[in-house]
Parts: sequence; structure tokens; C-alpha cells
Amino acid sequence: MSASQITGRVLIANRGEIALRIQRACRALKLETVAVFSEADRESRHVQEADIALCIGPASAAKSYLDPERLLLAARVTGATAIHPGYGFLSENADFAEAVEAAGLIFVGPTAQSIRIMGDKISAKRAMLEAGVPCVPGSDGSLPDAVEDVAAIAEAVGYPVIVKATGGGGGKGMRVVWSAAELAEAVSLTAHEARQAFGNGTLYLEKFMQKPRHIEIQVLCDTHGTALWLGARDCSLQRRHQKVLEEAPPCDIPAEEIARIGTLCAEACHRMGYRGAGTFEFLYEDGLFAFIEMNTRVQVEHPITEETTGIDIVREQLRIAHGAKLNLRQRDIVTRGHAFECRINAEDPRTFRPSPGLISRWDLPGGPGVRVDTHVTAGYTIPPHYDSMIGKIIVHGGTREEALARLEIALAEMRVEGVTTNLSLHQDIVAEPAFREGSVDIHFLENWLRTREEP
Amino acid sequence: MSASQITGRVLIANRGEIALRIQRACRALKLETVAVFSEADRESRHVQEADIALCIGPASAAKSYLDPERLLLAARVTGATAIHPGYGFLSENADFAEAVEAAGLIFVGPTAQSIRIMGDKISAKRAMLEAGVPCVPGSDGSLPDAVEDVAAIAEAVGYPVIVKATGGGGGKGMRVVWSAAELAEAVSLTAHEARQAFGNGTLYLEKFMQKPRHIEIQVLCDTHGTALWLGARDCSLQRRHQKVLEEAPPCDIPAEEIARIGTLCAEACHRMGYRGAGTFEFLYEDGLFAFIEMNTRVQVEHPITEETTGIDIVREQLRIAHGAKLNLRQRDIVTRGHAFECRINAEDPRTFRPSPGLISRWDLPGGPGVRVDTHVTAGYTIPPHYDSMIGKIIVHGGTREEALARLEIALAEMRVEGVTTNLSLHQDIVAEPAFREGSVDIHFLENWLRTREEP
Repeated sequence: MSASQITGRVLIANRGEIALRIQRACRALKLETVAVFSEADRESRHVQEADIALCIGPASAAKSYLDPERLLLAARVTGATAIHPGYGFLSENADFAEAVEAAGLIFVGPTAQSIRIMGDKISAKRAMLEAGVPCVPGSDGSLPDAVEDVAAIAEAVGYPVIVKATGGGGGKGMRVVWSAAELAEAVSLTAHEARQAFGNGTLYLEKFMQKPRHIEIQVLCDTHGTALWLGARDCSLQRRHQKVLEEAPPCDIPAEEIARIGTLCAEACHRMGYRGAGTFEFLYEDGLFAFIEMNTRVQVEHPITEETTGIDIVREQLRIAHGAKLNLRQRDIVTRGHAFECRINAEDPRTFRPSPGLISRWDLPGGPGVRVDTHVTAGYTIPPHYDSMIGKIIVHGGTREEALARLEIALAEMRVEGVTTNLSLHQDIVAEPAFREGSVDIHFLENWLRTREEP
Repeated sequence: MSASQITGRVLIANRGEIALRIQRACRALKLETVAVFSEADRESRHVQEADIALCIGPASAAKSYLDPERLLLAARVTGATAIHPGYGFLSENADFAEAVEAAGLIFVGPTAQSIRIMGDKISAKRAMLEAGVPCVPGSDGSLPDAVEDVAAIAEAVGYPVIVKATGGGGGKGMRVVWSAAELAEAVSLTAHEARQAFGNGTLYLEKFMQKPRHIEIQVLCDTHGTALWLGARDCSLQRRHQKVLEEAPPCDIPAEEIARIGTLCAEACHRMGYRGAGTFEFLYEDGLFAFIEMNTRVQVEHPITEETTGIDIVREQLRIAHGAKLNLRQRDIVTRGHAFECRINAEDPRTFRPSPGLISRWDLPGGPGVRVDTHVTAGYTIPPHYDSMIGKIIVHGGTREEALARLEIALAEMRVEGVTTNLSLHQDIVAEPAFREGSVDIHFLENWLRTREEP
């Protein structure tokens, strides 16, 4: 490698496929790995594959993967020099990032300050507006107390609007308002919910885009002034704000448009002094991008960007965190072909109820353009305590059509027994003409699921 | 797909991973598949995945996969419209290709005439010399009867020379001669062996290259006058003429040199009216290429070319056989990054004795750049009747170093229980400095294995 060698021992403060993914990146860099695990994950593959593995607590995530003190203690005990938080759990917890650095360790992620700014929707939006990144029209910061003032803002933005809690996320703490008559009650209900759920009743409001797509831009920034964007992903296929199937690049959006917004994102990163990997999420409708939030961590769907750009995002995260320079220039980054990712969940494909238990058969697809990222093997028992995602099927092809054909083949080849999975849901989606033609909006999947429920 | 749709039902006259590989390509083209199987392969994955599956005989390959009559009968019974022979078995049997076409079916491969010319080493070499493809200096055709005449040829070529049977292959029917004193006996012994093994004692002789590498060029030719070369592979790592680990592109050979020889191969194909996929095998030493043989079928190691060029070779074979045009021009074919393939055999890594039996654990590697082609799953019993290859780990990376790192990680992640495999052999090879530095010759592996045997 032309890059200077980095050294250290990375504690991976996560579980499941992302823990394994991070281990792979560590190994590619000859970094040692420390796996931490709850009592429910003793038999997990990320534990078996690590150089050092340490049990940090009971099955409850609050007492294991979500407990900063246990993680820091584990780092001290094992002599770890860095902590990679993965996604979920503590990955976007600014206090944790700060505590990791205060303990003299490298946090594989942005600064606590970046996490804080982006974790608050109002400050995030303000930062974006300052950097020239387009945002959804809406209130300038938090809503005033007086109902008349809120009504004036809503009127100016134009109905429908959406009222959101600044501390919200994942579909919680938000409410669509279709007319002035509904506004006062909606604001009061949402503030109440937000106080209960997040301990913070601060709200803001935005124009409600009716049929937007979810388009996101992946960025990578080193600590030497290089900020790059790595193309875009379309993650419109969502159910209850959970992504189900993603693709890169988004179809039917001209490359110049993506380049324009990508450049703005990279410039915003540069301006903020952003460090590491991150994702700018946008709603996209009628040719317009509107920033909704930034994720200051690696995303579940990062592999489709890896497949289309050839860049190992997790390895770059680790290199950047260790002070290395990105060996890339923007003009070297070329998107090649098309990629899809299906999240394989152990859940009923109709009721979406989790289906933990013993996997008796787990035969993976293979062949050209097929990648599988999973921590699961035959004989593994899925614990009931965590996320139901047990793997990701990622396909790449020279064209969208080729990638789609490979996805169909891969889904048909995958064989799981012992637990129920959403494989058939993916097969049904892939067979759906609206999806095959491309560019479905973020409501497509839920509407389509409702249609299927009808007799 | 911009290409016109082709239709039909393809009988796959093979088993194992290549049968599954061909099924994948058929599915990508919406061609129906017919699996044939021996009684020993009833539980095989290629049988489960096919649209139609038919038992064609007992475990013995001679009475199943090698029996042209049973295969043709199976094609008639199942309404197949084409036969893909895969590799091995009848794939390079000109009589079979002829019989398939005489039965009104499409043979997915070159014409019987091409197979015949290339199947005979003397006529193959003559065709190459006519086409301007460099060959090893040697006798002009078969050796004369008189010992003095043979001695004069060997003298002119220069010792050491190698005496070979025209019908030989796989390391059989050949003998190195280091001096004039050994010549007469070597010729008589080799002729005797060749008569016994192949029923044909015809011999030829060539300069014996002492430390060559095995470099091969992949070609693809349609029936509309397009003949393309898809880069080169280095398959020097061999044991008893069996390839073990292959890479693409070969390291330390300038791209212009590969382009020069690739162009000659494509021109030779054009001149011969060659159809389908094929491989020109060369010895390479001191900057010189010397043709040794052409394989008129898909190779086991075709995936590393697929990974570096993005071209689905088996799909193109099927398209070409159905009369479609290659949608490619030579200038569109760009080699990207570096790929390796490890052949995973169920065999003892020291004695090389096959290890058939029940596979109780079969956990595959994953992550970026990792592809696995296999017909095997946990719970599968490897029959003792056939080849011991149970899968291939293929890795791709932006550079040789990246691909090598991914190969190490993938080999370490792969877990097999129940049967013994050569995984540890691959790990040892990958750890070997001479291999890591690149460009080992075809004797490297056997010499290295001998060194390891010493106490």
C-alpha cells in the first residue's frame, strides 16, 4: 500500500454484520480487533473472528452495547487504541465520542461537535443553509410559542406542512398538517409526544413534500482538508422509516444533478471541518433536493456505494481516524454500473413480526456480482434482543438491468430454514413493475403493502 | 437489455459449481434450464435449482456425464433446445459437439472443426503459426521415424527439449530430454506410453522452457465477425498440471505486451472462424510468449476475468451460441484492479488425497470484493466419484495488494467441517513471500511443496 502503515487495536462497539464488516476492514489494514459481546451474543461470528473478545454484560443492550462505561472499561482492559461504533447503538452519541477521546482513544467517526450539530435538526439545517445546501422550506429554527406566529409561518411555507420535534427521528415526533384548522392541535400533540419520548418538546416545521424520493450522498473527509462525495443512493423503499432495499446510483436523476448536490455536500463538510464518513439525506421531488438530515456514521447501505465506486468505505473510516490522508481525488471517483442491497430480516414478510430462533439452513447465493454481508451461519440462534437484520444481499452489474437480473437470481438461490425471513417480500418487490421501472417514492412500499393486504 | 431477447431451454451437461454457474447465466437471460445428474448427485444444488432435472445414469461418469447418447436422449425427453457442456467431461469432444448439432440442437461452444483442430497439438500449433501467434520452437509437426532425423531436429532446437504425444495432456505423454544421449530412449518410452494411454503414438518435440510462467488469454467471438480478447490470467501455480490459484492480470507483464499477444489471439480466432469463449495458453519466459494449447471451452478460472473486466463470460457464451452479437468493442474492454481465485478442493493439503464425505459446516466468507462460486452447502455429501473441487473463492480489489489482503481475510473466514480441504494450503501460499512479490514460475509450487515435506 502506498499509504503509510497505521497500527493499533480497534474495539468494535457493535454486533452483527457491521461488527464483522469492521473486522474485515481492520484486517485489511493489519489492525488488531477487539470484539465486545453481550451474553446473548456469545456464539456470534464477530466474537469468533476477533483477535480478542470480551463479554461486557447481559443481553439487554442498555447494559452492554449501549453502556459507554462498560465499553470504555473493555477498551482499557484489552489495550484497545481506537473504538469504531458501527451504526446504531452509540454511533451518533456525541457524549460517547467525547468520552472515548477523553480516555486517550481514537474515535472512528467525526468530532463530538459535528455529531452534536448534526444530531439536532435545527442546528443541522442551519449549518446546511449556511453552506448553501438546499433545505426544505420551513421555520427558521424552532417554532415560537404563540399559535398565531406558528400559523403565520405555516401560511408562508404553504400547506401541507410537517411539524417535527428537533430531537426526533425514526418516524417519531412528527405530524403532517393539511390545513390551518388542524395546526394548533397538531403542534400541541407533537410537543407533548416529543417531551415524553425525547425529554425535549422543541418543534420546527417544514413544507411537507408529498411524493418525494429519499436520495442520499455518501461523503468521506480526511483531517488534511480533503472532502469527497462518493455518489448517491436511492433509499426510497422504506416501511415505517426503515429502509428495506436500496440502490446506487438513483435512476432517472441526471449525473450532473447528482454531481452538483454532491459537490455542495463535500463543500459543506469542508466548511464544517467534518471528519470521516457521513451521509447527507435528501428528499427529492420535481428535480429539487431538500436536505433532511445528516448521518454522522457508516450506513447499513454503504456496500452499494462500495460496489459502484470500488472504494472500501469502512477501511477509509479507519485510515482517516488514524490520521491518514485519503489517497483519492474527486476526479478519480467514478461510478460504475448499478448496485442493489436487500436487507434480510428474520421477520414475517406480512406482519413484520420478528422471528428469532435457530437457523437450520443458511445457503448463500453466489456467482458474478453477488456479495453477502452477514454474521449468521447455519446453526446460529438469532437472539430476540436486537435488530432483526441477519444479513444483506448486495449485487452489482454493469447496468441496472443486469444488476436487477442478478438480484432476482441471488434472492431465488438464498435458502433459509428454521426462521422466517423477508426474502419473499424482496422477491415480490423485485417483481413489481413500478419498482423495475425505477424511481418509486418513499410512500410506495407502504401503499403497495396495503394493497397486498386487501383480499 | 439492448440485446435482442433469446429464448430456449438449455441442458447443462455437467455437474458441480459450473452447472450452477451456467444456470445463473441462463436465468440472467431468461433461458430455461435442464439439469442432468447421476445417481450420486441426486442431492446436488444444481439439481434443486434447475427448472427441469433428469437422472441420466449411475454414479460412474462414463455412464452419465460422459455418455453422449444419454445426454442427447435427455435433451430430447426434456425438450431442450441447446446444450452447454461446461468444462471437463464432453466439453472438448468434437464428436459430441457434432452429434448435438446433428440432433438439431445448439451446442454452446465452438464448431466441431475448431475443437478438432485445437484438440490435436500439431494442428493447433500449425494454425497458430499460420495466424502469427508465437509458438515454442520445435519440430514442424510430428516427429520422423528415424532416430537420426529426430536428433537433428532436437539439435537445431537446442537442448533441453520436451517430447510430447500429440494426443496427450494433463501432464501425461511428455518427457524432458536434457541431452542427445537420452533422446532415443525418451522418444521410444513416450511413444509407447502414448499408444497405451491415448491409442496414438504420434510425437512432436519442442524447446523445453525451464522457468516459464503460465499465462493465458481469454477470448470471446461471436458469429458476426467480432473476436475480442478479455485480458490475461496468470495460472502458474500448478501441481501436477492442475491449477491451484490463479490471478488476473498477471503481474510484471507490461499491459502493451499483453495487448500485443491478445490482439494476435483475437486475430487468430477471426481467421479460424472461432465461435464462443476460448483460452489461449502460453508459456512466458524472458519476455517471450510461446503458445502451448487452446482450450475451446469455459475455464474453471473464468471468474477472475469476469471480475476484472465486468463481462459475464458464461452469459456471453450463451448469447453467442444463440446467434446474438457481442455488444462490445475491444476498446470498451478495460481491466480494472486485480483478482485472485482459489480452488477449494476436498483433499488433504499435504497428501492431496481426496476427502469425500459429509460437510457438516460450510460458512462462507463475505464482504467487499469477495465472490464464492460453489455447489456445496452444509449437509451436502461429496460423492467420491468426481473431481474434488467443491468451490472457488474469488476476490477482487483495486490493486494487487488490496486483492491479496481480501484473499487472506476470505480464506481465514471460510469455515469447513466434516471433510478436509486445501484451505490451509492456500493460506500458506498466500503467506509465502515469493508469491506475494508476484511472478512465480510453473515449477514454484511443486518445488515449494517438496521443501515443506522436508523435516
